[in-house]
Amino acid sequence: MSEQSYEAALAKEEASLLQQISAIEKRIEEIDFAQETSAVNFPPNIQAKLHALRKIQLDIVDREVNFHLKAHAMEVEYQAEFKECHQMIARIVNGEDVSDLVEQDATTNDVADQPSGVPNFWLTVLKASFLDGVVQEQDEPALQQLRDIRCVLLNDPEPGFELLFEFASNDYFTNEVLTKQYFLSCAPNVEAPSKFNGFEIYRCVGCKIDWKPEHDLTKDPGMNSFFSFFEPENIAEVGTNCGVMMMECDFEYGYYIKETLIPRAVFLFLGENPELGDSKAMCTCNRCLYIDCLDHITTYPEPPAEEEIEDGEQEEDEPEKQVLSASSE
Amino acid sequence: MSEQSYEAALAKEEASLLQQISAIEKRIEEIDFAQETSAVNFPPNIQAKLHALRKIQLDIVDREVNFHLKAHAMEVEYQAEFKECHQMIARIVNGEDVSDLVEQDATTNDVADQPSGVPNFWLTVLKASFLDGVVQEQDEPALQQLRDIRCVLLNDPEPGFELLFEFASNDYFTNEVLTKQYFLSCAPNVEAPSKFNGFEIYRCVGCKIDWKPEHDLTKDPGMNSFFSFFEPENIAEVGTNCGVMMMECDFEYGYYIKETLIPRAVFLFLGENPELGDSKAMCTCNRCLYIDCLDHITTYPEPPAEEEIEDGEQEEDEPEKQVLSASSE
Repeated sequence: MSEQSYEAALAKEEASLLQQISAIEKRIEEIDFAQETSAVNFPPNIQAKLHALRKIQLDIVDREVNFHLKAHAMEVEYQAEFKECHQMIARIVNGEDVSDLVEQDATTNDVADQPSGVPNFWLTVLKASFLDGVVQEQDEPALQQLRDIRCVLLNDPEPGFELLFEFASNDYFTNEVLTKQYFLSCAPNVEAPSKFNGFEIYRCVGCKIDWKPEHDLTKDPGMNSFFSFFEPENIAEVGTNCGVMMMECDFEYGYYIKETLIPRAVFLFLGENPELGDSKAMCTCNRCLYIDCLDHITTYPEPPAEEEIEDGEQEEDEPEKQVLSASSE
Repeated sequence: MSEQSYEAALAKEEASLLQQISAIEKRIEEIDFAQETSAVNFPPNIQAKLHALRKIQLDIVDREVNFHLKAHAMEVEYQAEFKECHQMIARIVNGEDVSDLVEQDATTNDVADQPSGVPNFWLTVLKASFLDGVVQEQDEPALQQLRDIRCVLLNDPEPGFELLFEFASNDYFTNEVLTKQYFLSCAPNVEAPSKFNGFEIYRCVGCKIDWKPEHDLTKDPGMNSFFSFFEPENIAEVGTNCGVMMMECDFEYGYYIKETLIPRAVFLFLGENPELGDSKAMCTCNRCLYIDCLDHITTYPEPPAEEEIEDGEQEEDEPEKQVLSASSE
């Protein structure tokens, strides 16, 4: 066999192999597709159309991703609109000069009578909210020093938001601001694109609290603390199932603070619309085990049994009670 | 008394009266405010600050209204992005020339074998959806003629959306397109501004179906029909409580068609992610009495007792069954 014909034979064999591989790939794709749609059996002459329809469906999902990204970018731009309101609230709450904001009334508002600002504003807001059960008695002196809770929407390097808790100087830690960042993903799961539903929190990062000596409120493993919220890394240490649930709850808290606690803080403080503090309306995870799990953070022997997790009825009705009972055990 | 001094006295009295009225108005405002915030008792020297805080809170709500309106306008603009996808789906489903969309495969897709389009696509989608229970057996021959279900977002003269159901010629009615319009309001309730939560459907308008003689599927008061969906005016005739609930359910259906049924039609058809058809994930009213009530549209003697309405647990778990059982009574 000449070198040329040998090369030609090789090239032909290669082409044939490539063709076979392509056929196998196509067959795998067909099997995958048939499995995906196993619930319904379609005659083969409809399959090509369904293939095409499914491609368009996936294209719709991709376009929705773009829409959500654009909407988030718009929200990021729009936050300046709300910033000045939140700054005014902070000025009043912290007793800064607010003569331009507060109408003075000589009889009831004698300047000498005025306390500085609105004492315990943010602690009261927290306790009127869905996070009530997370605030422990021993956390309160530190939380009385809360000057502001803010949210900053981020788009760069990735979509997300940062919660900032600003504190006056206190006996517990030296940080002026405690932060928690939440990162959002907006992409369909390739294995289950039909479940795509816009942005989802997928990761959060806390901050290191510089505790003053003998004042670490999160140190005692037998005691829960609101400040564990800034240590989400600890959740990763908990057994997988329980860790995932706690993460879901943590994400619910973060989302609630961004969407309700901050923009409705005054209504929460005033006790208007108790539903704002109602976890029933907010928590879609139905498994508020966050504090329950934190309680056992070092001792949890096994993830809880499946029926315990799924039995969400009562938890949904009385989550605060459940959370509180965890701390009184 | 000279005329001048008389007029001066009158003017003075008027000024004094106006001042008194203003003081009374201010006092009423204070009483209103105190009542609104009766859950918490604040010392009087804090009241002025709370007044100012509440004004800022209402300003935040107003700015949210503007944000939602802007976001809706963006969505209206963005719908062109999705339109071409939905038009391609319609072409494939209705067997129009789709050689550019459907990959031809000589072995399984012999042209002679091809049925025209994908038979019963939209009927299958409806039955795989949250609206399953609304589709009655006698509706199916008409619904087999569904060529398309579309949604057009509107911003002018007011925000809303229109659902369009396009039919091939059929034995039942002469309309080519049946429509249902939903109108959205985006304004806080002045009596309960803390409950503001963005857009809400507040009104819907159906269309007149031009039934062919002897083919009106909605005529028999003892039989439910999917086509009653286009006659929301009838709901207004039902006793107030029941009517309000039915309206809420109707709004849920409209919102579901816009948000899930249309953008996830192919996934619903293919049976991917059964949750897409799950009312548990969609219906927040927990009181799917729509069909139940329609059943008694002329005979309902009294609105149902409160406990029947509030007992939503089982309904939430098995709403389809409940809706179906209503039609088999």
